[in-house]
Amino acid sequence: MMKAVGLVVEYNPFHNGHLFHLQQSKYVSGCDAVVAVMSGHFLQRGEPALIDKWTRAEMALAGGCDLVIELPVAYATSSAEWFAHGAVALLEATGVIDAICFGTESGQLAPLASAAKLAASNSTSLKQLLQEQLNLGASYPRAYSNALTQLLTQATDWQQNAIALDQPNHTLGLHYMVALERLNSSIKPYTIAREQAQYHDPMPNHHAIASATAIRKMLLEAQNQNLESISAYVPRTTLDLLERTLIKEARQPMHWERFTAQLFYQLSVMPPAALSAYREMEEGLEHRFTQYAKQVSRYSVEELLSAVKTKRYTRTKLQRALLAVLLQHHKQQFTREQLTQGIQYIRVLGFTEKGQQLLKDMKKKAKLPVIHSPAQLLGSSDYLQLDVAATSCYMQLFEAKNPKLQLADYHKPPIRL
Amino acid sequence: MMKAVGLVVEYNPFHNGHLFHLQQSKYVSGCDAVVAVMSGHFLQRGEPALIDKWTRAEMALAGGCDLVIELPVAYATSSAEWFAHGAVALLEATGVIDAICFGTESGQLAPLASAAKLAASNSTSLKQLLQEQLNLGASYPRAYSNALTQLLTQATDWQQNAIALDQPNHTLGLHYMVALERLNSSIKPYTIAREQAQYHDPMPNHHAIASATAIRKMLLEAQNQNLESISAYVPRTTLDLLERTLIKEARQPMHWERFTAQLFYQLSVMPPAALSAYREMEEGLEHRFTQYAKQVSRYSVEELLSAVKTKRYTRTKLQRALLAVLLQHHKQQFTREQLTQGIQYIRVLGFTEKGQQLLKDMKKKAKLPVIHSPAQLLGSSDYLQLDVAATSCYMQLFEAKNPKLQLADYHKPPIRL
Repeated sequence: MMKAVGLVVEYNPFHNGHLFHLQQSKYVSGCDAVVAVMSGHFLQRGEPALIDKWTRAEMALAGGCDLVIELPVAYATSSAEWFAHGAVALLEATGVIDAICFGTESGQLAPLASAAKLAASNSTSLKQLLQEQLNLGASYPRAYSNALTQLLTQATDWQQNAIALDQPNHTLGLHYMVALERLNSSIKPYTIAREQAQYHDPMPNHHAIASATAIRKMLLEAQNQNLESISAYVPRTTLDLLERTLIKEARQPMHWERFTAQLFYQLSVMPPAALSAYREMEEGLEHRFTQYAKQVSRYSVEELLSAVKTKRYTRTKLQRALLAVLLQHHKQQFTREQLTQGIQYIRVLGFTEKGQQLLKDMKKKAKLPVIHSPAQLLGSSDYLQLDVAATSCYMQLFEAKNPKLQLADYHKPPIRL
Repeated sequence: MMKAVGLVVEYNPFHNGHLFHLQQSKYVSGCDAVVAVMSGHFLQRGEPALIDKWTRAEMALAGGCDLVIELPVAYATSSAEWFAHGAVALLEATGVIDAICFGTESGQLAPLASAAKLAASNSTSLKQLLQEQLNLGASYPRAYSNALTQLLTQATDWQQNAIALDQPNHTLGLHYMVALERLNSSIKPYTIAREQAQYHDPMPNHHAIASATAIRKMLLEAQNQNLESISAYVPRTTLDLLERTLIKEARQPMHWERFTAQLFYQLSVMPPAALSAYREMEEGLEHRFTQYAKQVSRYSVEELLSAVKTKRYTRTKLQRALLAVLLQHHKQQFTREQLTQGIQYIRVLGFTEKGQQLLKDMKKKAKLPVIHSPAQLLGSSDYLQLDVAATSCYMQLFEAKNPKLQLADYHKPPIRL
């Protein structure tokens, strides 16, 4: 019987650090297959993906994943709590996952496990402490970590094991653990220390490993789509796929500035009251965005973000708010109840032969419909409609010469490798 | 005491035909001052104006108007009935207008007067007959004219005076007359035959007079913004102002294709159910637009309009629906009640010395606040907010290098000539 480990990924793009994590995950969990839950065209930090999800799924398969399923955009662009919930609920729903393995700054699972148990069972007191912290003006991640630490120091011998809960991968790891708790999942968690490259490092600092941020920066700055600068940091397979997409197919890597027209259009036409209906647009942020969208020196998302930024809001938070404006994600579609019940389909983006075995297995064990195209289910899931809209919005710019690719979600079969 | 005639205009751009109409209007009405109610940045046929409203107001003043006030976008982009209502209600509200003079195909006022009386007093039966005609598949203008003709032949000796009510200027003229009836206005109507150039004629067919459509076509097709092709058809003052805007200030004339990114973005991200909340988006049009926006061979508003066009819908109707999508005009903002009560301010775009006298007179006689900037009134009028948003949307493209011009409605004082 095949054993499968689940990874939660963005692969933007798939690089040597991802390859290393993938191999380590199989090793520590003793699994022989890898299932990746991958975000589609828009990502957790509130940004568009560099290249389309099918090409990224192909990178994942070429790099050692056996099955790639898509994290619906409703979760892929959520803050850590719901991002983690969506990903873990999807893995759980496949019915074939034995383990989950994620990278953290410390590589320690025990403190995350005790923090998660506490967070999952004390959500009311946690919410209260969190609100107090927010009222003091802390950013959300900092406030959450402070609140949880308060709870932990009251309740356990936390001090001895203490890890910095507000580090980005500890935050995500904690929420994977909380989700496993809440779903009462039998999936066994593992963590691996991310030593090679810090999440946000803009510059490569290791021989063969650079952060995805650094790699994207090199790609966006490369003259004439020259891929040489990144060749040391990505597997050959990734390099080939980037070459195919960016050079042979002559597509431009996506980034926020390519949505400038659409975004500033929205910010100029919509009154603040209408903007505030979008997710993450709260506490007066809508007024700040409306105001600064008309005070920038030129139409630039970067300049807008800098103008709106305050200590209170992380850049990620602001980008997520802009993404909600771009994708027209209304708060009313993302209530706690809807998010709790929103994982309703398993969308396959690609698979290997081994992945095909897993898919066969899933025919018996999966708790949700497994689909290859939204056509199989559309109309019955609002979140699926959001996925289709996100692809449509993305492809309009990624492939401006072919409007029919707006419907790629319907026409593109899963990648088989 | 000064006598003033009101004109309802778009001046897109101001040309010799407009000049001729203006002079004739003063002559037939015996007035010595001209007040123009002019549309702002978006027009009745569902199109953006070629150049900004301040430059067009300046053309109007240079061409002989004494006061230019803005028709709010809610009316300026409405079908004939509400367009006419808004314009006439504004003229009425100034308290200083003695006459209104409009061009028609026939130049006959009597049949319009009797048709208007009947239409104003029989709105229930008219609505019923109109619906019958629409159910038979007629376009709206044709259906309206058929229904009204039915009513007329039943009730009066219409046959003898019959004019073709579905000709565009008869339609507008009729609705000016209906509005005068409904408002119980003392403004005296006049009409002048429009002989020189048919409204839609794409080619100039008279020595010094060409339709605005023909002039726009020449301007948009001109190489290097060369204005020579139109010089025979516009006053010297218009030519100078076009030269200033298009050559010295290096702005591009506006047309639908410049909104392609914004429009297709809206059509791809919004589900049909959300699109159908926009004005004019009815009877399944939202599905046609959603579908064809993804089937065009390239992102082009022109191609989209051709694809969606059927016998039932005039091109104007489709363009107005697209404009409602672009400007995010929701049906719920345009109920009959809201439109009836929506004229709440008189926004001055420009005036001459004689116009200043009229403005002084209006201080005593006007029935609504006379404003020079939306700042004087914003918050108390939803339609004023739509005007500001329309300018913001327009200026984003008309002057892409200066984001602050999105707020031109606040910063630009009225033109004084």
